[in-house]
Amino acid sequence: MRAAPADHVAQNGFTVHTRGRGFTEITDKVGEVVAASGVHTGMVNIFSLHTSCSLLISENADPTVREDLERWLARAVPDGDGIFQHDEEGPDDMPAHVRAILTGVSLVAPVHGGRIQLGTWQGIYLWEHRLDPHQRKITVTVLGH
Amino acid sequence: MRAAPADHVAQNGFTVHTRGRGFTEITDKVGEVVAASGVHTGMVNIFSLHTSCSLLISENADPTVREDLERWLARAVPDGDGIFQHDEEGPDDMPAHVRAILTGVSLVAPVHGGRIQLGTWQGIYLWEHRLDPHQRKITVTVLGH
Amino acid sequence: MRAAPADHVAQNGFTVHTRGRGFTEITDKVGEVVAASGVHTGMVNIFSLHTSCSLLISENADPTVREDLERWLARAVPDGDGIFQHDEEGPDDMPAHVRAILTGVSLVAPVHGGRIQLGTWQGIYLWEHRLDPHQRKITVTVLGH
Repeated sequence: MRAAPADHVAQNGFTVHTRGRGFTEITDKVGEVVAASGVHTGMVNIFSLHTSCSLLISENADPTVREDLERWLARAVPDGDGIFQHDEEGPDDMPAHVRAILTGVSLVAPVHGGRIQLGTWQGIYLWEHRLDPHQRKITVTVLGH
Repeated sequence: MRAAPADHVAQNGFTVHTRGRGFTEITDKVGEVVAASGVHTGMVNIFSLHTSCSLLISENADPTVREDLERWLARAVPDGDGIFQHDEEGPDDMPAHVRAILTGVSLVAPVHGGRIQLGTWQGIYLWEHRLDPHQRKITVTVLGH
Repeated sequence: MRAAPADHVAQNGFTVHTRGRGFTEITDKVGEVVAASGVHTGMVNIFSLHTSCSLLISENADPTVREDLERWLARAVPDGDGIFQHDEEGPDDMPAHVRAILTGVSLVAPVHGGRIQLGTWQGIYLWEHRLDPHQRKITVTVLGH
């Protein structure tokens, strides 16, 4: 157990250019903000300023895991589902909102030894739920000492 | 990148009186706690002290988005589902717990410029999952400088 | 509203030995870290370093709630589902990843009066999604004053 003054807060943002529905790993980009913050021990929040993509911590070794995640979610929340009224932007409009609610737009992870602490098989991903490419703004906030 | 002493913590609560299943926007109430905290840069946690409602960040412009969210979740977790044993409080009892697990009871967002930083189309909502009105207690904690 | 210097950060970890798929309550273990931190008011992050179990806040009184949660999730994400490619570790391999994404690997809760603040019916649980027993590492980080 370490107890010490919590004397640092740092905040920075970056933009992810997605290529349509699918995953973009952002572990390194988040790690850069944490490294630059000067925080040794604390926590980091990663936040997406959007309602049709999500942030998640997922398995980072086998890309078929992410393909399977996409396949499961596409079946659970099908594009063009007749129960949806909100479809101004197309058949993937409302499904993207449901997907974002189910998988979340905000993550918190520990900072330990000046780095984000993740398990061996964990990576941080942005999951684009719209079919078209988008620019997604992410804010990273680091607190600790 | 700003790095500065993290010298403030503030915590306050409020109660949401729901009118049964549906959404109540709490963006302004959370914003008031953030404004009163004196924190300029940091993060805010919004926490619900209940297991049958949830907190979420969702699209805040078109009310049909929330109607569609409700319609999707009602189909995925139907009231009165025969697989549920726990139904002391009625057919919406156990579905409310499943809904709360899937959508979450805790949110974290950045504080920037003395305000909660949300995307243009993001609002913070309490989602009541019980059919009857309830009083829901929310705790807001702000950390930063 | 209390506003005071945020002058403490504490971080500690523990391991949960699961007995295969199911729930282990960790409320007391998290509470010990919070009590030892010396933080009176602030927030706590509980983080799992794994991609096939999750952390959740659920009803803590009636064990049938957890049985029903398991039954609902087992139906929504069936073991051995033919849509999954990733099955090196068996029919529960990819379902465990999907379950972890849907229910989350990180929690944040308020610290109030030197204790984690939970509702009367809330408990913190680790949900093992693999069929076999595993050792799961949890990191707890407390920030506040």
